[in-house]
Amino acid sequence: MKFSPLLDSLIRELQILPGVGPKSAQRMAFQLLERERKRGLQLGQTLQRALTEIGHCQHCRTFTENTLCDICANPKRAENGQLCIVETPADVAAIEQTHLYSGRYFVLMGHLSPLDGIGPKELGLDQLDNLLKNGDWQEVILATNPTIEGDATAFYIASMAKQYQIKVTRIAHGVPVGGELELVDGTTLSHSLSGRRPLE
Amino acid sequence: MKFSPLLDSLIRELQILPGVGPKSAQRMAFQLLERERKRGLQLGQTLQRALTEIGHCQHCRTFTENTLCDICANPKRAENGQLCIVETPADVAAIEQTHLYSGRYFVLMGHLSPLDGIGPKELGLDQLDNLLKNGDWQEVILATNPTIEGDATAFYIASMAKQYQIKVTRIAHGVPVGGELELVDGTTLSHSLSGRRPLE
Ligand SMILES: [Zn+2]
Ligand SMILES: [Zn+2]
Repeated sequence: MKFSPLLDSLIRELQILPGVGPKSAQRMAFQLLERERKRGLQLGQTLQRALTEIGHCQHCRTFTENTLCDICANPKRAENGQLCIVETPADVAAIEQTHLYSGRYFVLMGHLSPLDGIGPKELGLDQLDNLLKNGDWQEVILATNPTIEGDATAFYIASMAKQYQIKVTRIAHGVPVGGELELVDGTTLSHSLSGRRPLE
Repeated sequence: MKFSPLLDSLIRELQILPGVGPKSAQRMAFQLLERERKRGLQLGQTLQRALTEIGHCQHCRTFTENTLCDICANPKRAENGQLCIVETPADVAAIEQTHLYSGRYFVLMGHLSPLDGIGPKELGLDQLDNLLKNGDWQEVILATNPTIEGDATAFYIASMAKQYQIKVTRIAHGVPVGGELELVDGTTLSHSLSGRRPLE
């Protein structure tokens, strides 16, 4: 025991946070005790509320404390019949920030990874199948990451959507805007070349 | 708003922790929600208990949820009449781990820093004065850091202790054991030279 039992517990438990080791947990605990008691208490309360109340949206699986997330609860977002498939809630946020997309989402909360025991069931693909079957979809946009797993997941979902004669697209991968060609890795450059389009 | 209101709050509040920016706060929130709900709830509870219950030891000012810390509550630690002055509770832990010291401590919770508004009062030096006046002390060991502020603080406390004819010592500073001379900074090397002792 280095400190009092309660302080030792706090320092030990802070280490469940990703990237936090013994030294930074100790620094966090001291800073909270010395300077941030009020906001630290608030954080403790929010942590408990969030981990109790936040679940998954019943339509798209993103994190929300409500039955439906704001996007799924908005009938306007269903009007154009677009469904964008992403791996994480952060991907939804990134696409929303472009202000270029006004359809719905489905959040896999991961990608197919058989070695880690993550199969179609873990990604909610039975739920997605129901959604595809019963919705009035014009297009499924596959926005999983351009990784081996993300590509495999996209391929799997593409074959699901084609069963219902829904148009399937994959977001373009290539040289980032403002990026320098010589700094881009080979795989990205291959994607960029094979995805080339006529200049209009 | 990037996520649901409650998730946004969690991500924002996690950033009161030192070293945690928006990206790592988001990563922490997602990991807790996906994989660590139970331990995260426990952390929320411990955070609230710690920030409510942990105060300062009435004798030595270190952090404790009790009136006295374990060391001050142990009459054996008062027997040899040694009082070691340190800047932080972490310094107490470091000295305890040497198993070479069996006296009491006084924890300043900082060092004199007039520009930051930290004077004798903020370091509890009135309380220390009472302790020195009313105790049966053989030696005050100054173990503040070997920095300008730590040295100034040690000097200040030394003059307090001398009022009561208590022997005052300063811990030795020099080349760390196992360290290489050429890698040590000049100030440390000066301390090391001026603190030289005859080989026995
Ligand atoms: Zn939703
Ligand atoms: Zn104490």
